[in-house]
Amino acid sequence: MPDYHSNPFNLPEYLAVKQKFVNDAMADIFSKHFADTRLFKAMQYSLMASGKRFRPILCLTAAEVVNEINPSVVSAACAIEMVHTYSLIHDDLPAMDDDDLRRGQPTCHIQFDEPTAILAGDALLTLAFEILSLPEISSVQKPQIMLQVVHILSKAIGCRGMIEGQMMDIRNEGIKIGFESLKQMHALKTGALIEASVHIGAILADASPDQIHHLSIYARNIGLAFQVTDDILNIEGDPMSMGKASGTDQTRLKSTFPGLMGVARSKEYAQELVNNALQALSFFDNKAIPLSALANYIIERKR
Amino acid sequence: MPDYHSNPFNLPEYLAVKQKFVNDAMADIFSKHFADTRLFKAMQYSLMASGKRFRPILCLTAAEVVNEINPSVVSAACAIEMVHTYSLIHDDLPAMDDDDLRRGQPTCHIQFDEPTAILAGDALLTLAFEILSLPEISSVQKPQIMLQVVHILSKAIGCRGMIEGQMMDIRNEGIKIGFESLKQMHALKTGALIEASVHIGAILADASPDQIHHLSIYARNIGLAFQVTDDILNIEGDPMSMGKASGTDQTRLKSTFPGLMGVARSKEYAQELVNNALQALSFFDNKAIPLSALANYIIERKR
Repeated sequence: MPDYHSNPFNLPEYLAVKQKFVNDAMADIFSKHFADTRLFKAMQYSLMASGKRFRPILCLTAAEVVNEINPSVVSAACAIEMVHTYSLIHDDLPAMDDDDLRRGQPTCHIQFDEPTAILAGDALLTLAFEILSLPEISSVQKPQIMLQVVHILSKAIGCRGMIEGQMMDIRNEGIKIGFESLKQMHALKTGALIEASVHIGAILADASPDQIHHLSIYARNIGLAFQVTDDILNIEGDPMSMGKASGTDQTRLKSTFPGLMGVARSKEYAQELVNNALQALSFFDNKAIPLSALANYIIERKR
Repeated sequence: MPDYHSNPFNLPEYLAVKQKFVNDAMADIFSKHFADTRLFKAMQYSLMASGKRFRPILCLTAAEVVNEINPSVVSAACAIEMVHTYSLIHDDLPAMDDDDLRRGQPTCHIQFDEPTAILAGDALLTLAFEILSLPEISSVQKPQIMLQVVHILSKAIGCRGMIEGQMMDIRNEGIKIGFESLKQMHALKTGALIEASVHIGAILADASPDQIHHLSIYARNIGLAFQVTDDILNIEGDPMSMGKASGTDQTRLKSTFPGLMGVARSKEYAQELVNNALQALSFFDNKAIPLSALANYIIERKR
């Protein structure tokens, strides 16, 4: 762990190192679980595309803030990215958002076909739980902690979490919803998995209840800031650098933060949320510098 | 446990009692996880329809053969039925088998809509893992055993198990495949979850490696016998009593056991498989009578 007081923290470098770390770990899992099948190719195609790896990086970084990264954190980070990728594959399906472009390449159902995309999503979700419960993991982490991770993750992404958020998103198309409903939808659709990523990293690094409490406040605020920024990017962003289409929220008559309060106020709101997140980090020492930088990055990013 | 030597075993009664037991346990989970949402209604609609509950009953019965049913077995049985129901919802989708009728009622995407059906399937799969990792369960079962159950289940239903079986099934439509390929496809598509159901029931009841070994042989054989009989029912069965359409394999040009070897030889083959299963049960005492009766039921059933 570098000393961030004497050396100014370089976020782009930090992200590049962590992205490579996550990609290598996922490639390693895929080589161990290799199968020469179309299903496997589709899973690999979507998972190994150039994602930001934001959620697994949050998981790793949360672990580093309270302690250090151990192999169980790496497994969990990979499982989290698998879950995120499954949710993208299913959200992009013709029956859902019907998107053609994702992570700078054709979506899974365009590159392969619809049944393959449905099954590749199912299989990535399932593989996440297989990874979290590998027998080898018991040599580096207590089974009761791994079981707790399975629970935190499944609850966050289930019928009162991420999936319900996606359901609300689809059902809300063409309907004007208010600020609180919009916040609630995003708290489920995006926030729940982001919060779980931080929570899981923390508990796998043996965080105290106090540390978990402050990290949860941090995660809740950046989760929402992330979505507000996504809405802004959908208006102002460049499709080339985002790797997906822009302007789609308006076409689909989706309620968005800029739609409710305008772009300028949305940017202010995102900044307020990041300020709340930074405030929660003041509980920690300078080990939390990467999390601060990540919070600022969330609203400054171009993709 | 009744004494099956002095009282002849009554399978229909046994199945009715166990079905009610599973349905009550699932209703209990649903009342605890209740949400007043369309997503939740769709999950409940498909899960609580009149299924045979074959897999959860196998799980419970396997536990009884080696020991007795404890609350962790009940949770696992419910999780297994959730996984099975998710697989049916996704298999029935327009992009997959495009079926309108299931368990005697319109399929989930017909009753609700396609995005709701995709998400209800995702949510049932996810809920299965949430149930298996509930914190309360640690008061009745060791966390390392529950984590092992998560692993057995996720592996059985993943990209080298059930999902790959479904992928092969779709890809094989219109293609004539041989006996070994057909067996391999069904070993994954149907066999893996049936085998996992028995395995999970056994380990949650603290089975010995020898007991698990013999139960696995039993499960592998009845899993295949189940599919051979399904193929026969697709030709000879009555759609009313099956609660789904018949004749669909031929319409879809699917390879089937009767298609490869004729109906008469298929029936003989199913009987041979059941004989193998019964042979494996000779390792156990008369506590295994329900499993014997279930094996015979598999090839005699009308739905």
